[in-house]
Amino acid sequence: MSSTHRAPRRDSTCAVTRTLAVLNDSWGFLILREVFNGTHRFTEMRDHLEIASDVLTARLSTLVGNGVLSKEPYHEPGQRTRFAYQLTPAGEELKLVLAGLQQWGDEHLPHPGGQTVARVDRTSGLPLHVAFVDDNAGIVALQDATFVHTENYPRS
Amino acid sequence: MSSTHRAPRRDSTCAVTRTLAVLNDSWGFLILREVFNGTHRFTEMRDHLEIASDVLTARLSTLVGNGVLSKEPYHEPGQRTRFAYQLTPAGEELKLVLAGLQQWGDEHLPHPGGQTVARVDRTSGLPLHVAFVDDNAGIVALQDATFVHTENYPRS
Repeated sequence: MSSTHRAPRRDSTCAVTRTLAVLNDSWGFLILREVFNGTHRFTEMRDHLEIASDVLTARLSTLVGNGVLSKEPYHEPGQRTRFAYQLTPAGEELKLVLAGLQQWGDEHLPHPGGQTVARVDRTSGLPLHVAFVDDNAGIVALQDATFVHTENYPRS
Repeated sequence: MSSTHRAPRRDSTCAVTRTLAVLNDSWGFLILREVFNGTHRFTEMRDHLEIASDVLTARLSTLVGNGVLSKEPYHEPGQRTRFAYQLTPAGEELKLVLAGLQQWGDEHLPHPGGQTVARVDRTSGLPLHVAFVDDNAGIVALQDATFVHTENYPRS
């Protein structure tokens, strides 16, 4: 395998890397987008994403194996058993990651045709943003949010 | 190019896809992580990430070309001009995406050695979370946050 596509390791001490190991490449993110968008069946995902079946199979297997999606059998008359993919509670939490990517794309790479998907509170209908918050439920400005090494950070 | 690594398109109507087109693959995310972690020089990034020089050059070029990083010349005695990479204001906003990946990895794929990097408010020192907030500065529960199609959503 070329170094271009060397897979991030799930045993990395870096939590970003571990999550990337599950999502694997852009396909992982786009498959999740499909599921959040109400697409749960293999053939529909394949058609929407124009992804090769073997690649879709591999990515779904990784997402199921890491507890992001669950795989549920379903039957249609006269057909063999097929599977539908649903978000697990852990998978639901990746909504924040997808929303963060979406928010950035809408702000910094706006599409000439306008925003196609909005984030809203399903109860209030208010538009939503992804932001940093603290334990007192206060919103923290981006420039005040910082990453700090803990005592567990590997020494080089 | 195999369909496995078909690049997401920057002209997609999907904002998630447009952002992924800039980050390209896991390397894009990991390069950003390096810059957020204080690594700004090509050789240091290459050594930390164990990435091939040509791949790093290509990813940095995409990130600079899309306004995520800026490229600043620097000189060391007796050396030719080299470049250091800094986050632009747009690049700073991707902090939310990296933090979202990190938060998920720490929660769902915890490392046996413990959390290595924490997110804190640099003023208050309080731990930070990535969350959905509304226009009234209220934190919105994950299950209440939903994606809805706007009138610009492409009709199939």
